[in-house]
Amino acid sequence: MAQVMNVGLLGFGTVGTGVLEIIEQHQDKLSHQIGAEVRVKKILVNDLEKDRGNLVKPEQLTKNASEVLEDDEIDVIVEVMGGIEEARNYMKQALLNGKHVITANKDVMALYGSELLQIANEKNCDLFYEASVAGGIPILRTIVEGLASDRITKMMGIVNGTTNYILTQMTKEGRLFDDVLKEAQALGYAEADPTADVEGLDAARKIAILGTLGFSMRLDLDDVSVKGITDVTSQDLKYGDQLGYTMKLVGIANRTGDKVEVSVQPTLVPHEHPLASVDDEFNAVYVYGEAVGETMFYGPGAGKLPTATAVVSDLVEVLKNKRLGVSGNSAVIPQHEKKLKTDEEIHSKYFLRLHAKDLPGTFAALTALFHENNVSLEKILQVPLNEGKLAEIILVTHEVSKKDYDILLKRLEEEEVVIEVKSSYRTEGEMK
Amino acid sequence: MAQVMNVGLLGFGTVGTGVLEIIEQHQDKLSHQIGAEVRVKKILVNDLEKDRGNLVKPEQLTKNASEVLEDDEIDVIVEVMGGIEEARNYMKQALLNGKHVITANKDVMALYGSELLQIANEKNCDLFYEASVAGGIPILRTIVEGLASDRITKMMGIVNGTTNYILTQMTKEGRLFDDVLKEAQALGYAEADPTADVEGLDAARKIAILGTLGFSMRLDLDDVSVKGITDVTSQDLKYGDQLGYTMKLVGIANRTGDKVEVSVQPTLVPHEHPLASVDDEFNAVYVYGEAVGETMFYGPGAGKLPTATAVVSDLVEVLKNKRLGVSGNSAVIPQHEKKLKTDEEIHSKYFLRLHAKDLPGTFAALTALFHENNVSLEKILQVPLNEGKLAEIILVTHEVSKKDYDILLKRLEEEEVVIEVKSSYRTEGEMK
Repeated sequence: MAQVMNVGLLGFGTVGTGVLEIIEQHQDKLSHQIGAEVRVKKILVNDLEKDRGNLVKPEQLTKNASEVLEDDEIDVIVEVMGGIEEARNYMKQALLNGKHVITANKDVMALYGSELLQIANEKNCDLFYEASVAGGIPILRTIVEGLASDRITKMMGIVNGTTNYILTQMTKEGRLFDDVLKEAQALGYAEADPTADVEGLDAARKIAILGTLGFSMRLDLDDVSVKGITDVTSQDLKYGDQLGYTMKLVGIANRTGDKVEVSVQPTLVPHEHPLASVDDEFNAVYVYGEAVGETMFYGPGAGKLPTATAVVSDLVEVLKNKRLGVSGNSAVIPQHEKKLKTDEEIHSKYFLRLHAKDLPGTFAALTALFHENNVSLEKILQVPLNEGKLAEIILVTHEVSKKDYDILLKRLEEEEVVIEVKSSYRTEGEMK
Repeated sequence: MAQVMNVGLLGFGTVGTGVLEIIEQHQDKLSHQIGAEVRVKKILVNDLEKDRGNLVKPEQLTKNASEVLEDDEIDVIVEVMGGIEEARNYMKQALLNGKHVITANKDVMALYGSELLQIANEKNCDLFYEASVAGGIPILRTIVEGLASDRITKMMGIVNGTTNYILTQMTKEGRLFDDVLKEAQALGYAEADPTADVEGLDAARKIAILGTLGFSMRLDLDDVSVKGITDVTSQDLKYGDQLGYTMKLVGIANRTGDKVEVSVQPTLVPHEHPLASVDDEFNAVYVYGEAVGETMFYGPGAGKLPTATAVVSDLVEVLKNKRLGVSGNSAVIPQHEKKLKTDEEIHSKYFLRLHAKDLPGTFAALTALFHENNVSLEKILQVPLNEGKLAEIILVTHEVSKKDYDILLKRLEEEEVVIEVKSSYRTEGEMK
């Protein structure tokens, strides 16, 4: 085995270290698959002096990006430094230099994926990003290859570990949002600034990537309607549970005809749905294919070795392609023009919790209002509050268009017997 | 696009028809991926006269296998005829003629997989069989490619839809085995002779295939210890549920160091384990990788279009490889020598239900016996039966070697206070 494939690493934090470890530990298996030795030649770091044990030799490290990006012997650049602008520029430069690129960076891919894939395509380079969505689950490869001969109509993903951990703890242990968030931060599941996670932005980036691939349609972050979990209360979880649902932050991408909808929101899924048992920091993506029906892919969404494993799988693919002389063939350029559904075309069931005056006629007034707005009801739960002065009413609707539902919500707020609409969630995943 | 890839079909039943339909419906997407047109040139059928609508032209059909196997224009043979000896011979002949082969036939692959893969390897042909295990789940590809840089230590699979349907109905609806089996036969989920399903043989074939690939070690059907679901009673399900478990027929392949164990048996998994919510005819494979941790792949295990989709995915792979000139590279020949664990090396928890005399001292006698045999207990449930003359005792052990446990079972049967050991099941999938 004379051939050597040289890899350049941008960044040497947790994931970068994992990548190096896996390459060294699985050298035999990798070279058996690729027919060449894999060597990490150069690593871009911030601090040359930091103690890294005997994991690397000093001559592998550099603080100068061009020593990695301009090295003619380096075939593949692995970007695991994080951040947005700098990472994007390095990746762009690498591709323009004819190097294949692997990244774990969902932010860059959600924002600049099309631009980078375009350059990769022009330069006949591979650009792979399996680790950017649900690190430990080979979901992107599955969508592209495994379901090659199917037509995907819908994807539902629990793709943010932090919020799933928080919701699981709130649901199972009855804990409060703030309390669990603090613990998650202490455990390293949540960042010091948790906004991107709890507001649903991280999940939105990932569902945009999934939608783009699954529907072969360029979907940007701006196309995703986003709602996070900060307003989810323990009452919502409790009543959801009583009506047979578990609360999850779900990214949804669905397609009817040639139009799509992409969104992220706290969603109630039936207890018996496989997504309902995806707990703690685990991720899962539920895929509906026209031919194959319903499939789900479950695994760790992050973590050093799961993410590094995804990166190394991409590396194997890149190196195989290079040896076969087919690099760049697999850069998937979206085939379809973007067409987003209007609110009239988005259909869903909803869970609705409201406080109303507990008077004779309240229920009749409500049902009349629902009826007028084309919303029919599947489940109803009414609980007296405040010694009967108030009624807590929890409803699950049948399928309704978002347009009709939003009008209904407005009417409810104007309705005299209604004191307050407390909360409203989409419900998805009804089992047949 | 001048190039045409010709496919020969052996068999034109449910799956064969599905394959043809998918190829025709997704012609655009397929040729976009492969860069060539896919055409089904010849189909081996039993009956030339049967009405097949306008799905095929008469000249595509033949009753003569050699018209398919010897046609120089045909690149790939798709075997979807079922059965064992004839299918094996045709596949062998096709490979010897230098044709790539795709099969959905788990029986042939479990029995003659090594032989056929060897020939494929020698002839530089691809031999793919994704549809043979969990039709709608691209699990074989995932194991080989997605987890390329990981080391799989354990797989647990619900890989037989019929038994999963029966157990789900028994558990959720409290129905009886015979009753559900009859219904499953009427619905077409179970065969007229259900032996291979309910005795666990079908699952055993699939777990042998999974183990062979996942551990890169040639595992035959004879290496799988098999127990079916015919003895599972409603009491077992009820007490299992009370102690927090759901009963599933689980194929287990696990590896410690360089030794493996492969088995199929009714197994109790904790309610909160993702495998517990795999219901009805669905399949799932839970994979433990050293780096990636725990992942699960869920989907339909059979059915016309799911199976046909898997076949067509293989077809895409074969045709890509052919165009790239790398056919045969991916035929995975096992790397490791087969080493099976002894009973001393197989460790597990067990659920045990027995009837004992309800006398003072019974429990002390039992616990002494457990202690003597190195078996410690995690959960205990005792229920009086027959107006207190009898005690039904249900136990869950801590991890114990199969050797110690089997000795214990024998001792229990000899023990005076024990009237009868009613049942015993492995329990797996304890969540941390």
